[in-house]
Amino acid sequence: MKDIRIGLIGSGYIGKTHAIAYRTHTSVFGGPANPVCVAVADDGDARAVDAARRLDIGKAYGDWRALVADPEVDVVAIATPNSLHREMALAAIAAGKHVYIEKPLALDAPEAREIAAALKGKNLVHMLGYNYLCNPMIGMLKAMIDAGELGEIVHFRGRHNEDYMADPSVPFGWRCSLVLSGSGTIGDMGSHLISMALHLVGPVAAIAGDIQTVIPTRKDANGASRAVENEDQGHAMVRFKGGAMGVFESSRVAQGKKQGLAFEIVGTKGSIEFDQERMNELRLYEAGAPVGRRGFKTLLVDGSCPDFAPFCPAPGHGLGYNDLKVIEVNRLMKAIAEGAPVPVDVHKACEIEDIIDAWLLSAEERRWIDL
Amino acid sequence: MKDIRIGLIGSGYIGKTHAIAYRTHTSVFGGPANPVCVAVADDGDARAVDAARRLDIGKAYGDWRALVADPEVDVVAIATPNSLHREMALAAIAAGKHVYIEKPLALDAPEAREIAAALKGKNLVHMLGYNYLCNPMIGMLKAMIDAGELGEIVHFRGRHNEDYMADPSVPFGWRCSLVLSGSGTIGDMGSHLISMALHLVGPVAAIAGDIQTVIPTRKDANGASRAVENEDQGHAMVRFKGGAMGVFESSRVAQGKKQGLAFEIVGTKGSIEFDQERMNELRLYEAGAPVGRRGFKTLLVDGSCPDFAPFCPAPGHGLGYNDLKVIEVNRLMKAIAEGAPVPVDVHKACEIEDIIDAWLLSAEERRWIDL
Amino acid sequence: MKDIRIGLIGSGYIGKTHAIAYRTHTSVFGGPANPVCVAVADDGDARAVDAARRLDIGKAYGDWRALVADPEVDVVAIATPNSLHREMALAAIAAGKHVYIEKPLALDAPEAREIAAALKGKNLVHMLGYNYLCNPMIGMLKAMIDAGELGEIVHFRGRHNEDYMADPSVPFGWRCSLVLSGSGTIGDMGSHLISMALHLVGPVAAIAGDIQTVIPTRKDANGASRAVENEDQGHAMVRFKGGAMGVFESSRVAQGKKQGLAFEIVGTKGSIEFDQERMNELRLYEAGAPVGRRGFKTLLVDGSCPDFAPFCPAPGHGLGYNDLKVIEVNRLMKAIAEGAPVPVDVHKACEIEDIIDAWLLSAEERRWIDL
Amino acid sequence: MKDIRIGLIGSGYIGKTHAIAYRTHTSVFGGPANPVCVAVADDGDARAVDAARRLDIGKAYGDWRALVADPEVDVVAIATPNSLHREMALAAIAAGKHVYIEKPLALDAPEAREIAAALKGKNLVHMLGYNYLCNPMIGMLKAMIDAGELGEIVHFRGRHNEDYMADPSVPFGWRCSLVLSGSGTIGDMGSHLISMALHLVGPVAAIAGDIQTVIPTRKDANGASRAVENEDQGHAMVRFKGGAMGVFESSRVAQGKKQGLAFEIVGTKGSIEFDQERMNELRLYEAGAPVGRRGFKTLLVDGSCPDFAPFCPAPGHGLGYNDLKVIEVNRLMKAIAEGAPVPVDVHKACEIEDIIDAWLLSAEERRWIDL
Repeated sequence: MKDIRIGLIGSGYIGKTHAIAYRTHTSVFGGPANPVCVAVADDGDARAVDAARRLDIGKAYGDWRALVADPEVDVVAIATPNSLHREMALAAIAAGKHVYIEKPLALDAPEAREIAAALKGKNLVHMLGYNYLCNPMIGMLKAMIDAGELGEIVHFRGRHNEDYMADPSVPFGWRCSLVLSGSGTIGDMGSHLISMALHLVGPVAAIAGDIQTVIPTRKDANGASRAVENEDQGHAMVRFKGGAMGVFESSRVAQGKKQGLAFEIVGTKGSIEFDQERMNELRLYEAGAPVGRRGFKTLLVDGSCPDFAPFCPAPGHGLGYNDLKVIEVNRLMKAIAEGAPVPVDVHKACEIEDIIDAWLLSAEERRWIDL
Repeated sequence: MKDIRIGLIGSGYIGKTHAIAYRTHTSVFGGPANPVCVAVADDGDARAVDAARRLDIGKAYGDWRALVADPEVDVVAIATPNSLHREMALAAIAAGKHVYIEKPLALDAPEAREIAAALKGKNLVHMLGYNYLCNPMIGMLKAMIDAGELGEIVHFRGRHNEDYMADPSVPFGWRCSLVLSGSGTIGDMGSHLISMALHLVGPVAAIAGDIQTVIPTRKDANGASRAVENEDQGHAMVRFKGGAMGVFESSRVAQGKKQGLAFEIVGTKGSIEFDQERMNELRLYEAGAPVGRRGFKTLLVDGSCPDFAPFCPAPGHGLGYNDLKVIEVNRLMKAIAEGAPVPVDVHKACEIEDIIDAWLLSAEERRWIDL
Repeated sequence: MKDIRIGLIGSGYIGKTHAIAYRTHTSVFGGPANPVCVAVADDGDARAVDAARRLDIGKAYGDWRALVADPEVDVVAIATPNSLHREMALAAIAAGKHVYIEKPLALDAPEAREIAAALKGKNLVHMLGYNYLCNPMIGMLKAMIDAGELGEIVHFRGRHNEDYMADPSVPFGWRCSLVLSGSGTIGDMGSHLISMALHLVGPVAAIAGDIQTVIPTRKDANGASRAVENEDQGHAMVRFKGGAMGVFESSRVAQGKKQGLAFEIVGTKGSIEFDQERMNELRLYEAGAPVGRRGFKTLLVDGSCPDFAPFCPAPGHGLGYNDLKVIEVNRLMKAIAEGAPVPVDVHKACEIEDIIDAWLLSAEERRWIDL
Repeated sequence: MKDIRIGLIGSGYIGKTHAIAYRTHTSVFGGPANPVCVAVADDGDARAVDAARRLDIGKAYGDWRALVADPEVDVVAIATPNSLHREMALAAIAAGKHVYIEKPLALDAPEAREIAAALKGKNLVHMLGYNYLCNPMIGMLKAMIDAGELGEIVHFRGRHNEDYMADPSVPFGWRCSLVLSGSGTIGDMGSHLISMALHLVGPVAAIAGDIQTVIPTRKDANGASRAVENEDQGHAMVRFKGGAMGVFESSRVAQGKKQGLAFEIVGTKGSIEFDQERMNELRLYEAGAPVGRRGFKTLLVDGSCPDFAPFCPAPGHGLGYNDLKVIEVNRLMKAIAEGAPVPVDVHKACEIEDIIDAWLLSAEERRWIDL
C-alpha cells in the first residue's frame, strides 16, 4: 500500500481534525492508500513548531509557501481562514500538488472560479472538506432517494444554525470581516447546508434570500467597538431544477443550537428528517406502510450504510464528528489511488459559491435571482 | 349563572368539536356563563335532524337563515366551508347576534373587511376559532415572551404542514376550489400559523412568498379529472415589525405530518420549540443557565400554565385537541359575560387575511410585499 | 336513547374528572345511553353543595348513604379515598345499584373479595376506573399483541413513577396512612401499572418485590411530625403465566415524572414502547422490516385505533387525560345498555389486589411469592 | 514523549477498536505518552499475518505466548473470548507486563481473583476495557453526582439490552457456551451496566436476580442443534450500600436495541436519564428550578465535560463509539506515565464479577444474596 504524503496548512480547529483523521484512517479502512501527514505549516515558526508537537507531525513550516514547495508533499491540505484559500490553492496547483481545501472554497464565486480555471489541463485531485456529506447515514439517504423510495421530492427545508456568536460579548474575529471571511454565517454554515441540498435534491434554479446582522457591533481584541461586516442570520426560499421548493436558513446567533445542521425532505412517497446533533439517526416516514402502521421510524446507523462497517460491525454503535473526516480522507485516498470521484470537487464548490453569492445579492436587492 | 344560547351552523368536523365543547365547558370551568347549544343548522332538513340527533342538540334547522332568526339564539357559531362565512356572518350581525366564526374568516381580505365594517357601531362580541392559541402551553409561552425571558425575538420559523391531501387519490373537494375555499393550504392551515406568529411575535411588516400545486389534477366525485385551483404548499419569508426575521410554511401534501403546526422562536436570551403533535410540551433553552447546564428543557403543561388547572390539578396530565375548543368557548363566555378580550377578533382576523393575500400575491409577482 | 342516572360520591381530583366525562360523553359518542350525573355526595352539606355548584350537578348530599338510597340513582360512582370503597360499594350493591369504583378497589385483597362476594347472584354492572386502559392507542396495541404482531412476549418493563411527594415538605396526607390508604405508591400508581400488564401480557404467576419509604417522616396539617406508614417506591420482578419475565416499578418520589406510566414490551417479532406523558404515541419496532429499514416507528393515534374517531376524524389530533374517562364512561354505558364487558370488573380488580398484596409481602419476607 | 509499546491479542470486533484507538490517541491527546501497537497475536500464523496487514501493525504472532514473551512489548492487551482471559493475564503478569483486559475480566469471580492475586506485590498497571465509563458525558455526570447536585441517590434503573441474538437463526457461538463464555448476556452486557452502576451509585449490598434462556436451542456451524447453555435475558433488583434501590436488566434478545445501555438515576434533588444510543446527550431534571420552568433538559456534550475538548472545541460536535476507546487508552497512558488511577482495575473488576455470580446464583436459588 502506497503512502500519500500530506502537507497541512493550518492547525486550528479543523486543522486538528485533519491531523486526527490522517492518523486514524488506515487502521479503520486498511487502504487503498495510507495518508501520512508529513508537514504542517502555521503562521510563523513558533506556532508551526508548536503545532507539529501538538499534532505529532514530523516537519514544521513557519511559511506555508515552503510547505507547498516541499517535494515530499503530494497533497496540500488547506485549513485556514477563507481569505487565504485562493492564494494557497493557486500556489499548490501551480506546484502540481493535489489540493484538499476546507469549505467554503473562497471568499466569493469569482475567486472560486479562478481556482477552477487553474486546474484546467492539470491531472490533479481536488476535494473540498464538506465533511457532513460523508456521514454513512447521509450515504444511505442518498441511495434511498436515488432509488426512488421517497418518490418525487417536492419540499426541502434545511437550516444550519449555531449559537457560537449569540453572546454579544463574543469578540470581533476574522469571521466578522468581509475581507477575511467574505460572507458571515452563510459562507460558514450555510455552505454546509447548500452542499447537502445539492447532494440530495440536486441543482438550484432560483433563490430569494434575506439576511440580517443581529448584533451590529462587537469589541475587538483591543476592546474597540467594531461594526460587524457580514450577516449573523439568513433565510432563503429556493426552487430546485427538479421542481421541488425549498427553504434554507443559516444562523450563528441561534441560541441553543450547537451542531445545528438539520433538514427535512418531503417526497410523494415518504419523508425524512435528519439532525446532525443526532447524526447516527434518520427519521423516515413511508407513506406506503399499512394503515395504522404509518409513522416516522428512527433508523440507527448500521452496516447497511456505506462506510460504517469499517469503524464497527455492531449496529447503532454510532460515529462521531471526527469520524466524518476519516471517511472524507478515505475518499481522498480513493480519488488519488483509484481515480474515484470525490463528494465535492472544485467545480461543485463553485456551484455552492454561486448560490451563496446569489443568496446575498437577492437579499440586498430584495428579489429572486435565477441561477 | 347565565345561560348563553348558541346556534351552530355546520355539523361536520369542526362543528362536532363545537358541540362537544359547549357540553363540556361548565363542568370544567364552572363559569362565568353556561353555553347551551340550542340549535344546529345544516344543509337541508334531513341532515340537520341527523346532526341534532348525533350531537344531542335540541332544535334542527335545514336552513341556516332560520337559525339566525331564532330569538332563542344569542350567538351564531359558523362552522361551514369558507365561502359561506361572509354571508352568514353579515346576516348574524344584522340580526344583532354575537358571532363565533371558524377560521379563516373569509375567502380573502376584502370579504373579511366587509364583515369588520358591518360590526361598526354594534356592541357585539366577535371571535374567530383559532383554537391552537388557546393551548395553556401557548399561554405560558406568551407570558414568557412578554416578560422578556427570551430577550429580543430575532427569528421565527413555523410550519403548519399536514398530509391529508398527499395521496393523489384524495378526491377534488371544496378545499381545492377557488370559489369555495379561496386559497388552498395557506388559508386552511397557514392561517393557523399566521395567527400564532402574530400572537407571539407581533405584526408582520413584509412578506415574500412562493406557492406550488404539487398534485395538479384530482378526480371529483363523478370520477372526472379536475384541475386543482389553489396551492398544495407554500413557503414565505417575512419581516416582523419588531425586527425579527421569519419563515412560514404550509402544506397539505407533507407526508407524515398529521397535526403539523410547529415553530421555533429564537431570542437574544433563549429559544423555544413547539410542536402541536406534542401539544403538552414546550422545549425551552435558557442562554443564562450555567455553563455545562445549558440545554433544551422539555416543560410539561401544569398549573403554572393559564387555563390548565380547571381540567386537572395534576401536572403533565395533558390536554387533547378538543380541550382547546373548550378553552376557546370559555373565552367566548368571558367576552360575553365580562367583556373580556378574545384571542382573535374580526379585526385581528382581517390582519391575518391581509397576510394570506400578500403571501399569494407576492408568490404570483415574485416580489416582496410590504404590509 | 335512555338516560343512565349516576350518583357521584366524591368531588375532588378524580370526582371532577367523572363529572366532566358524564357531561361530555354523549356529544362525543352519541350513545348507546346517556349518562346523567343527577347527584353528588361529599363530606357534609356545605362541601356537597359547593361541589354541586362547581360541577353543575343537580342534587347535593352531605351524607353518601342518602345518595345511595336515592331511587333516581342507577349507578353509584365511588371517587373517594381507598378506605371508604369497601363500605360504599357494599352499600350500593345492597341497594341494587351498579357500581363504578375508582382504583384501587380496596385497601387489600381480602376487602376486595368481600365486594366480589357481595356481587354474587346480583345482576349488576361493576367497573373499576382504570382509565389508562381506555386509551385508543392501548386499544390498538392490545389488538396488535392479540394478533401476534409482536410474536411471543418475552419481556415487560413498566413503571408508574411520579414526583408528587418528592418534596419532603409535602405534608402527611391520607395517602401516607395505612388505615386510610393501605399501601402507598403501589396501590396508588402501581395498580395502574399492574392493570396494564395484565391487560397486555396476561396473568402474573410469581412476584418478588422490594419497597422503601424514602422520606420517613412528614409534617401533618398541625405541623406535627408523623411517620409515613407506607412505601414511597417499590420495585418488583415478575414471571407471567405466559412465560414472559417482567419488571415493575412504582414511585411517588421520582423527581421529574408527572404522569409517569411507561412501559416496554419485547416480543420475538418486535417491540413497543409507550409513555403516558406522550399518550397519543406508540413506538413500534418491527423485526421483520427489511434490513436497513428497521427502527422504532412513532405511531400517532388515528382512526385505526378504537374509540378515537368519535372525538376527531383527523389523525394525530390527540386526546387528553380527561378524554380517557369519557371513553371509560362509554364502556360503562355499553355495559349497562348492551351487556358489553368492561375493561376491569371487580373480579379482575381482585386479581390486581392480589398482586399488590404479594408485592408487599414478598418485600417484607425477601422472597418470591407464587400467585 | 515516551512510546508505550503494546502487544494486542485478538483482532476481531474489539481488537480492531483497540488498534484504531492506539493509532488515534496521540493526535487527539498529545500525550502524556504515545501508545504504539507493535505486535498483534491471533489464532495461527495466517490469521495473525492477516490481522497485522488489516490493522497496519508491525509484527504478527500466531501464538499469543510469543507476543507475551516479546521484550518489545510493555503492555499486553487482551481482546479475546472470555475463557482465555485468565491464562493470558496470568502469563502477562508473570512476564512483568502491564495488562489491559477487555471485559468481563474472567469466566467467574474465582478466576478473577486468581488474576488479582497474581498482581500482588507487582508494580504493574492493570486496566479493564469498560469503555462506556470513558464517555465525557458520564464524566460530567459523575462529577455532578459527587458534587451533590442530584441530592441523595434513591433509585437507579439500568439496562443493557441488545438484539444481536434475537433472531433464532443466529448460530450457536462461543457466547452461548458455559465453558467459553461463562454467563450469557449478563457477563457480556450486564457487566457494562454493573460497571456503570458502581461508578455512579457505588457498591451493591444485595441482589435478587432472575434469568431466562428465551431461545433454548440454536444450530451450530455444522447445522446441528445445540442447547444454549447460558441466559438470553436477566432481571435483578439490587440494594446499594448507600441505600438506593436499583433495577438491572440485560438482554441479547431485545428486539430493536442496538447499543442499548441506558439508565435513569433519581436523587432527592433531581434526576437524570442516559441512553448510549444517544451517547452525546444527558437528560437532567433539576427539582430546584423555578415553578413552571422544571423539565428534563437535554445537555449536549461540550468542553465542560472531561476529555471532550481534545477531540473538538465545538460544543455538541459529538463523539462516537470508537472515541471512547481513545479516551480509555489515554487513561492507560496516564496510569503508566503518571501513576494516575484507571476507571476499572482488576480489583474493581472482581467486584463486578462478584455481582454477576450473585445475580446468577440468586436466580437459580430464587432468593436475595448479600454481597
